[in-house]
Amino acid sequence: MPVYADPVGGVAVRAPELQAWTARLVERLGTPTDIAGDVAAVLVASDRRGIASHGTARLPRYAAHIEQGTMDASARPELLRARAAMALFDAHNGWGHHAGRVAVDAAIAGARAAGSFTAVVRDSNHFGIAGWYALRIADAGLIGISLTNTSPLVAPTRALDPLLGSNPIAVAAPAGQYDHFCLDMATSTIPRGRIEVAARRGEALQPSWAIDRDGRPALTPEEAIKGALLPLGGCEETGGYKGYGLTLFVDILTGVLSGSTAGPLIAPLFSSVHGPVDLGQTFIAIDPEALDEPGAFEKRMEHEIELLVGARTAPNAPGRVLIPGEPEAAAERRADERGISLDQRHLGDLSELAERYRVPLPETTPL
Amino acid sequence: MPVYADPVGGVAVRAPELQAWTARLVERLGTPTDIAGDVAAVLVASDRRGIASHGTARLPRYAAHIEQGTMDASARPELLRARAAMALFDAHNGWGHHAGRVAVDAAIAGARAAGSFTAVVRDSNHFGIAGWYALRIADAGLIGISLTNTSPLVAPTRALDPLLGSNPIAVAAPAGQYDHFCLDMATSTIPRGRIEVAARRGEALQPSWAIDRDGRPALTPEEAIKGALLPLGGCEETGGYKGYGLTLFVDILTGVLSGSTAGPLIAPLFSSVHGPVDLGQTFIAIDPEALDEPGAFEKRMEHEIELLVGARTAPNAPGRVLIPGEPEAAAERRADERGISLDQRHLGDLSELAERYRVPLPETTPL
Repeated sequence: MPVYADPVGGVAVRAPELQAWTARLVERLGTPTDIAGDVAAVLVASDRRGIASHGTARLPRYAAHIEQGTMDASARPELLRARAAMALFDAHNGWGHHAGRVAVDAAIAGARAAGSFTAVVRDSNHFGIAGWYALRIADAGLIGISLTNTSPLVAPTRALDPLLGSNPIAVAAPAGQYDHFCLDMATSTIPRGRIEVAARRGEALQPSWAIDRDGRPALTPEEAIKGALLPLGGCEETGGYKGYGLTLFVDILTGVLSGSTAGPLIAPLFSSVHGPVDLGQTFIAIDPEALDEPGAFEKRMEHEIELLVGARTAPNAPGRVLIPGEPEAAAERRADERGISLDQRHLGDLSELAERYRVPLPETTPL
Repeated sequence: MPVYADPVGGVAVRAPELQAWTARLVERLGTPTDIAGDVAAVLVASDRRGIASHGTARLPRYAAHIEQGTMDASARPELLRARAAMALFDAHNGWGHHAGRVAVDAAIAGARAAGSFTAVVRDSNHFGIAGWYALRIADAGLIGISLTNTSPLVAPTRALDPLLGSNPIAVAAPAGQYDHFCLDMATSTIPRGRIEVAARRGEALQPSWAIDRDGRPALTPEEAIKGALLPLGGCEETGGYKGYGLTLFVDILTGVLSGSTAGPLIAPLFSSVHGPVDLGQTFIAIDPEALDEPGAFEKRMEHEIELLVGARTAPNAPGRVLIPGEPEAAAERRADERGISLDQRHLGDLSELAERYRVPLPETTPL
């Protein structure tokens, strides 16, 4: 996921205060306290990691869904099926963040017992950054995979319309003395949130990010929003069919496997509030200790990372080789030092919610 | 994987005859009959699917490894660890195709019992197309994932040298009346085999495929072979860090997890015959019937595919939206009708082996 540069004219807010505020706000929307705690943890983790598009900036949309009755703020996930290495939960159209946390914890416990475990959630909602769930598995010492389908945003190779979500793949693994390895990527060239941030900040788009409604490269956020994102790799000639394949594979492993809505039939999240989105989410946990002595996997991870970060770089490289997750971990440390940065539109959205639900925003300071 | 166009001046050979010849040749290399059968099945499946780079064209290299003692033609995989949803096999430096077939069959049986299963192989060798193993899982009615690390070919984003393999990801799922969904992709923009085929056929390279030894875009196969492949997405600005993340994730889930050699330390397969490659391979099987009625998943797959192949296409699209695996399945049908096509260099390599090991090649016909 892209770590965004500091916005011009933004403000900073302390992460613990933003998280407490988010939890209170989510409670005011009709959410039980424990569920609201999960939602706030995931959303503020995204803000801390510098993924401005997927954190508290999404609260207005969640609130709209709940207000219009297309999402149930109080629903609790139900375990429908359980096997030695597989479980199916029904989120009953509740918060995806909570259902995801419950399913991930089942995957961790199950993998410790069986070696590996696949937990699947149906009838869920957008759950924030996929990486949070993979990192929770890595925090427990296991390798974690986290997948979700999303509302249609991506045009499959050759298609004109957005038919598949930007369906992210997140993978995390513990790495001993280093930060966790954490790959958290939309299977589109960029996530939709990147276009939202470009729109908020008045930035231009790169070619191969998106097409307009006529199938031509979109040059402005407005054209892209009326058109479709392109899968990783861009168009067919530059390998975009691989990105499309990854996007579809995530939809199969989440929406199709769980029996949720899949592909083109998922209601849009962004342009309006239609029916429930009914997403599917899948979490895979793999326990390296099932195969080896405790700590042996982490030692090998450290060795792998040392070889990569110490490697010769190309003459035009802006720095040493990075490990996926490093930029986000650096953003976390920055946010914990000087606060989470909010751009003016993000701040305005939160202020509006604060006023509407009478939960005063925590103090902010200029960046 | 790319399906290659017919070579100029090529010949055709019947698939069953090529497979029987391959099995006999592999036996002559010191391989027990049952293992040779697995090797021939995987290699000729690649040729049938139009993946000329990964099939019998690799036989001279396997033979060189066995002749020099860096691969053991007669080794049998050993089950080292077994849990309810995880197993570790040691291939003892034998044929990767056979160890992969054994591990995949364990994953299928295990997933039927537990819902999902992860089978890991250490000390293995190059195993052909990753898709063969995922398809074997799909043939059994399950969702299959197949991963392997490979000899260093890809420069991580910012790096100058090939430090990671083109580490493929293959995913397959049964799709009812349609061919299996089968995504089988190198996590480099192109597989190394694509450059070998370009070299054999005198074709030029696309930019973003590879860099030369100074980190500049490679324009000829020769420059690319001295330099490194680029990860999916190309350079850093166009999202290549996502492809690099996928490449590294596959290395972690195979080489690092299995305790095999990983990353930059893997011996090269192509330029010379060094020590054993000691690869890791991981297979994940997920049984949809653990969550639902028999056939329900396939029905949903059919519905998803119908929506995609019937979608509106962009004005410049060369045809309808394709499902991953369709071009390869079409190549299979073509190969079964008129034979597998071999270019002159491929034919020459096989003829040389046929002579050296006194196993006469089957009859070929001009294309």
